[in-house]
Amino acid sequence: MSFADRLAAAVQTSGSVTCVGLDPRKAQLPAPIRDQVVGDTPDAWAAAYTQFCTEIIDVVAGRVACVKPQAAFFEQLGPAGMVSLGHVIAHARKAGLLVITDGKRNDIGSTATAYADAYLGDASPWGSDSLTVSPYLGRDSLEPFVEVCDARQAGIFVLVKTSNPGGGLLQDRVTDGKSVYAAVADLVTELNAARIGKSGYGPVGAVVGATYPEQLAEMRAAMPGAWILIPGFGAQGGAADDVKAGFDASGLGAVVNSSRHIIFAHARPEYKDKFGDAKWLDAVSAATDEMNGQLRF
Amino acid sequence: MSFADRLAAAVQTSGSVTCVGLDPRKAQLPAPIRDQVVGDTPDAWAAAYTQFCTEIIDVVAGRVACVKPQAAFFEQLGPAGMVSLGHVIAHARKAGLLVITDGKRNDIGSTATAYADAYLGDASPWGSDSLTVSPYLGRDSLEPFVEVCDARQAGIFVLVKTSNPGGGLLQDRVTDGKSVYAAVADLVTELNAARIGKSGYGPVGAVVGATYPEQLAEMRAAMPGAWILIPGFGAQGGAADDVKAGFDASGLGAVVNSSRHIIFAHARPEYKDKFGDAKWLDAVSAATDEMNGQLRF
Repeated sequence: MSFADRLAAAVQTSGSVTCVGLDPRKAQLPAPIRDQVVGDTPDAWAAAYTQFCTEIIDVVAGRVACVKPQAAFFEQLGPAGMVSLGHVIAHARKAGLLVITDGKRNDIGSTATAYADAYLGDASPWGSDSLTVSPYLGRDSLEPFVEVCDARQAGIFVLVKTSNPGGGLLQDRVTDGKSVYAAVADLVTELNAARIGKSGYGPVGAVVGATYPEQLAEMRAAMPGAWILIPGFGAQGGAADDVKAGFDASGLGAVVNSSRHIIFAHARPEYKDKFGDAKWLDAVSAATDEMNGQLRF
Repeated sequence: MSFADRLAAAVQTSGSVTCVGLDPRKAQLPAPIRDQVVGDTPDAWAAAYTQFCTEIIDVVAGRVACVKPQAAFFEQLGPAGMVSLGHVIAHARKAGLLVITDGKRNDIGSTATAYADAYLGDASPWGSDSLTVSPYLGRDSLEPFVEVCDARQAGIFVLVKTSNPGGGLLQDRVTDGKSVYAAVADLVTELNAARIGKSGYGPVGAVVGATYPEQLAEMRAAMPGAWILIPGFGAQGGAADDVKAGFDASGLGAVVNSSRHIIFAHARPEYKDKFGDAKWLDAVSAATDEMNGQLRF
């Protein structure tokens, strides 16, 4: 089944549009995980990251649509971290969760193919269902990814409109009435054109931040065949009303990511006393329920 | 010494502005390297990549300014490839060559810091002198890299104007008389402003393709404090006349990358009969001399 159709099935089966961002950071790991790190070595921290992420996966499996490991935090540990990333992706897929590897990779021609080959599909070293990619290099940098998606029933999410304050510097520049991000949206739509599956969606998704609700509505209309990955929910300030416009009439077409608010929920003021470090997985579970509840429209 | 000043010293000491792109690809490895790969495993290929790249490094050390390993090809092998990337970077630095890791990474805020932490400086797992980064996410995605550059005397090269045919789709869009790539150039200049070293250059470099000579001149003028990494020479069609405009009056300010034309020189029609696979390192040496000669203005 195509990635887009699998994502639709995942949303329907789980009854959730939540994507759990797996962003392990040394300083924020709950005590029961951190305390097991003996010796400040990359291998020791990598083992902790694997344990942290796989325990979260076991709690959220069946209850959310997908997970999004952030490659940067694994890379920060060096090669040992990249081994951990592979374990985390494999564990999530075995648990029935779709995986969006957040790597924001890209390059030109055969180099782009190498990245696609590295991250997409069962035959790849990291075996992810999908990958986030950057569009700055243009159409011929995205096409190699799309070809690999076709061959391996995988997906990509192209950065369109990001949730950070500085994202507008380039993305909002308007030429002949069209912004850069709208031009990227057109490209996403073109690349999906001959690839729309049963769910109504194609392999080329888009990243559109939750911090810009008006633009989310504009982007939903501009990319009717694209799954939208909406970051910026929760810790970054986006709320349920802000993400509504990302969905189609059937409640499909978007997944909403939260990282810190779920994975480090034990440290949130409202959960700290109730759960704390000791019951950090209960805090993850409660935060998942809470987010799922907020996103039932 | 700052990265920019070290790069100036490297150009002056070697008398060369050549950057050798280390792009290992299974199918194009010379027979003496390929034949040693026993079993089609990532570890076996990674060992071959390490041997291939380190032997090239030993040939070009002292004769070129820097090397640029392409992360994508190492990542294609999975974690074993990332171990190889570390070996290659370390070997190049031990041989006295500056290293530009071509990863085109980026993300926002603390995630960008994680990438910078992964790749830049002696204390990082991959220990590179510099890293290529993508600007699509805007100023606040570049600042964390610059902070790490300050702390570790490292550098970055921001994608400004790329050498691929499709690069113009976003990069050439003009708003109020200014293209996207010119806006990125302004950002590079701003970030360098308080950071110019003895050489006249700062830690924030720029990638400007050799396939657009007019734009290279425009970009040299727009970013007087930025080292320019010029890809697209040789196999991608750029010639010596096309890159001249990248240099300042002292012959500093730019390095010119060639990958395939040097590392796979044994397969070039004009070298094939003379060297072939058996003498592939002699072909690397001859191609290096040839490129150095072409770039003496």
